[in-house]
Amino acid sequence: MKYDIEVKISLKKGMLNPEAATIQRALALLDYNVENTDTIDIIKFSLEGENEKFAHQNVDEMCQKLLCNPVIHDYKIKISPKKE
Amino acid sequence: MKYDIEVKISLKKGMLNPEAATIQRALALLDYNVENTDTIDIIKFSLEGENEKFAHQNVDEMCQKLLCNPVIHDYKIKISPKKE
Repeated sequence: MKYDIEVKISLKKGMLNPEAATIQRALALLDYNVENTDTIDIIKFSLEGENEKFAHQNVDEMCQKLLCNPVIHDYKIKISPKKE
Repeated sequence: MKYDIEVKISLKKGMLNPEAATIQRALALLDYNVENTDTIDIIKFSLEGENEKFAHQNVDEMCQKLLCNPVIHDYKIKISPKKE
């Protein structure tokens, strides 16, 4: 069974986000005044797995080992059966 | 009226995505075989605007001028009234 995976990675609350700060400053220079700027990264892929639970476990391992830094990142995993 | 804005930026179809390719290769080195890896960036902020149409126009300008490169990126704008 194939699954479509979406991992949503954001910085933990309270962590500084220099990318967002730079965007907000650059927008201000163009006279756009925005607030509470934040950035989120999404990684999407498809994966072969026996069942949804197994796939979720696998993706969680990938997040811990490679995709995220658990010290500074929060992540959410979304799994859906692959659309053909 | 305040609005919460979410801009979802992805590479146009057919553009090479070296970040996604690197992730896929690195996962393969850890014995996770995934396919069709893709990355998406989300920029969130809040914005003061007269009405939703005006806010959308404003954000579209920001995308064209700064947030995206219209040559290589597709973007989607999501606007919702700010939750207090």
